[in-house]
Amino acid sequence: MSRTTAETGTRERIVNASADLFRRQGYAATGVKQIVAAAQAPFGSVYHFFPGGKEQLGAEAIRTSGRLYEQLIPAVFDPAPDIVTAVRTFFELAGEHLEQTDYVDACPIATIALEISSTSETLRGACAEVFERWIEAGATRFEQAGLARRTARELTVAMLSLLEGAFVLARASRSSAPLETAGEVAAARVKTALEAS
Amino acid sequence: MSRTTAETGTRERIVNASADLFRRQGYAATGVKQIVAAAQAPFGSVYHFFPGGKEQLGAEAIRTSGRLYEQLIPAVFDPAPDIVTAVRTFFELAGEHLEQTDYVDACPIATIALEISSTSETLRGACAEVFERWIEAGATRFEQAGLARRTARELTVAMLSLLEGAFVLARASRSSAPLETAGEVAAARVKTALEAS
Repeated sequence: MSRTTAETGTRERIVNASADLFRRQGYAATGVKQIVAAAQAPFGSVYHFFPGGKEQLGAEAIRTSGRLYEQLIPAVFDPAPDIVTAVRTFFELAGEHLEQTDYVDACPIATIALEISSTSETLRGACAEVFERWIEAGATRFEQAGLARRTARELTVAMLSLLEGAFVLARASRSSAPLETAGEVAAARVKTALEAS
Repeated sequence: MSRTTAETGTRERIVNASADLFRRQGYAATGVKQIVAAAQAPFGSVYHFFPGGKEQLGAEAIRTSGRLYEQLIPAVFDPAPDIVTAVRTFFELAGEHLEQTDYVDACPIATIALEISSTSETLRGACAEVFERWIEAGATRFEQAGLARRTARELTVAMLSLLEGAFVLARASRSSAPLETAGEVAAARVKTALEAS
C-alpha cells in the first residue's frame, strides 16, 4: 500500500511522540489519547496505521528508537582519538545530556524492557532485538580495535550494563555522578583488555 | 493509633502483594483492584491503611523491598571466604534466581525508578533513598576490607550499576549471561582496587 506524504508525516509523528512519552514515563502510563494529543493526530489514526493498537505501535517505537540511538556509537567513536577515550566520552556525553534534559532522556527502551519483559512477548522481543543490535555494533568496534570476538562482545555487554544501571541510579538520584563512575570503570576495563590482547 | 493483629496482617499482605506486582510488571500497569485481589483484602482497605492511595502505598512497598533486599548483602558477604568471592557469588546467585523465577525477580525497585523518576517526586525520593542505603551498606563492606571511603563508594556504585544494567539485558533477552559477564567485571574491579590499596 502506497502512502501519501501527509500519511507518512502523521505516522512518523505518532511513532516519535510515543517514543518520547515511553522514555519519560514508561509504556503502561502512556495512553493512546496522550499519544495522539502529543502527535497532533486524530484519535483513529493510531488504529489506522497500527491495527494491532498500542502494542504494535510500542514495538515500532522501540525499533525506531533503537536505530536512532545506535547512531550515537559512530557519532562518538568515529571522531575519538582512540577507543578508550571514545568509551569515556560516551559516558560523559550521556551524563551531560541527562542533566540538560532534567534527568529525563536516558535509555529509550530500558523502562519498557523492565515493564513488559514478563507480560508482552511482542515488546520483549523488540527490546531484545535492539539490545542485540547495540551489542553487535559495539562489539564490532572493539574487534576492529584488536580484541578477540568473544572478549569484544563481553566488553560491550559490560559497558551496556554499566550504562543502563548508571541511568537507573542517575535518574533516581537526579545526579550524573553514577554515569561518571560507570564511565571510568568501563574505560579502565577496555584499556586492560587492549593491553592483554 | 494501635493496630489489631488482623489489621497488621492485611496491611502487610497489601504491601507485599504490591511489591510483587510492581517487580513483575511495574507501577503504572498495577491497579489497586489487582493489588487487593492478590492480597485477598477488601477494596477499601488500601485507602484505610494508605489515605494517600496508590502513591503512598508505592512508597511504602519501595522502602519495604529496599530493607528486605538489603539483607542479601550480609547473607552473601558474611559467609564468603573473601570479598572478591562475595562479589562474584552475589552476581551468580542473582543470575540463578532470575532463571528460577522465569526472569521475573530481578531488582524490586528499578522498574518503578525508571517509570516515575520524572513524574512522582514521592516515589522518586523513596527509590533514591533505597539506592542510597544499598550503596552505603556495600561501601561499608569495602571499607572494612581496607579500601578508602571514596573508593569504596565508587566501587559500590559501579557494582550496583553493573547489576541493575545486567538485569535489564537479562530480562529482555531471557538469559542470565549478562549477569555472569557483569559479575566478572565487578569482581575484577574489586580485586584491582584491593591490590592498589
